[in-house]
Amino acid sequence: ALSIATSAAAQVSVEDAIKFRQAGYAFMSWNMGKIKAQVIDGQPYNQDQVAAAANAIAAIANSGMGALYPAGSDTGTGFRATKVKPEFFQNMPDVGQLAGSFNTAANELAAAAATGDQGAIRAAFGKVGETCKACHDKYRAK
Amino acid sequence: ALSIATSAAAQVSVEDAIKFRQAGYAFMSWNMGKIKAQVIDGQPYNQDQVAAAANAIAAIANSGMGALYPAGSDTGTGFRATKVKPEFFQNMPDVGQLAGSFNTAANELAAAAATGDQGAIRAAFGKVGETCKACHDKYRAK
Ligand code: HEC
Ligand code: HEC
Repeated sequence: ALSIATSAAAQVSVEDAIKFRQAGYAFMSWNMGKIKAQVIDGQPYNQDQVAAAANAIAAIANSGMGALYPAGSDTGTGFRATKVKPEFFQNMPDVGQLAGSFNTAANELAAAAATGDQGAIRAAFGKVGETCKACHDKYRAK
Repeated sequence: ALSIATSAAAQVSVEDAIKFRQAGYAFMSWNMGKIKAQVIDGQPYNQDQVAAAANAIAAIANSGMGALYPAGSDTGTGFRATKVKPEFFQNMPDVGQLAGSFNTAANELAAAAATGDQGAIRAAFGKVGETCKACHDKYRAK
């Protein structure tokens, strides 16, 4: 889940926190794109590639990105100016719930991908996409 | 390994390829930093956090980043102007070997992290760091 309690070990500057969260999301989106191409858009299915992509998404989801939202990171520039909305920091219980749903969905996608069942992967992929969108709709600026 | 053969499913623009590889490396470096803090710099050890960080590094390593070096991506801008050296594209067998060593080391770090043996994690962490540096020394501009 998106725990905001960070240990000292995870302290990074506001700029780095923004950069690392943008990195994590961008890298997940590359992997979502690979899965989409193969289970939605009809490109040739490659089990190793889909499983590896789902594992990358799940491992990033499980890595505690909540630590990348330190106080003060509502504004600032990482790779680019942050798109987080101020509402993110004002609705932490809701953010935590959305992040928890996202984590669950990401781990379910990895489990489905490991089986190679394309119907199950398609369904799990759709659920992950919904959890990305749910957060963006509320907490990411256009 | 860093396979350059990309399926149609993995095709992205040069700009996106550069962005996604910068994202993958940046996200790994955040996770390397968390592990370093705890097994080298003496910050409090948190087994879940170290295991999750090592899993993120391994899953990113396993995700086929070779596909993020398409022809033409020796120059261009992703999140920022690429730092890859032209030599990268001229020495693919060597790059493949360095990438293979990196993958092996990343998976060994994840295995060590799962055991919670801090001495083994420290050793495996050091090996991963060497494989990052080996590639940067030859193929990443300062
Ligand atoms: C709990 C909230 C949350 C979840 C879950 C979430 N995102 Fe985001 N996402 C954000 C926020 C906030 C930003 C803006 C980050 C910034 O600029 O500081 C963002 C930014 C992004 C970006 C732009 C990164 C950049 O700067 O280039 C992409 C792409 C993205 N998300 C994709 C995804 C994908 C794909 C998923 C699911 C697999 C996902 N996100 C899940 C909140 C979330
Ligand atoms: C096979 C080669 C290779 C390996 C292995 C490798 N790197 Fe890199 N790294 C590169 C190249 C090339 C770039 C420049 C990418 C670009 O700008 O297009 C780079 C860029 C980076 C960046 C800068 C990203 C940015 O733009 O902010 C960081 C940080 C980084 N690497 C960390 C790591 C870490 C940590 C590891 C190991 C856990 C690692 N790298 C393993 C080749 C490698």
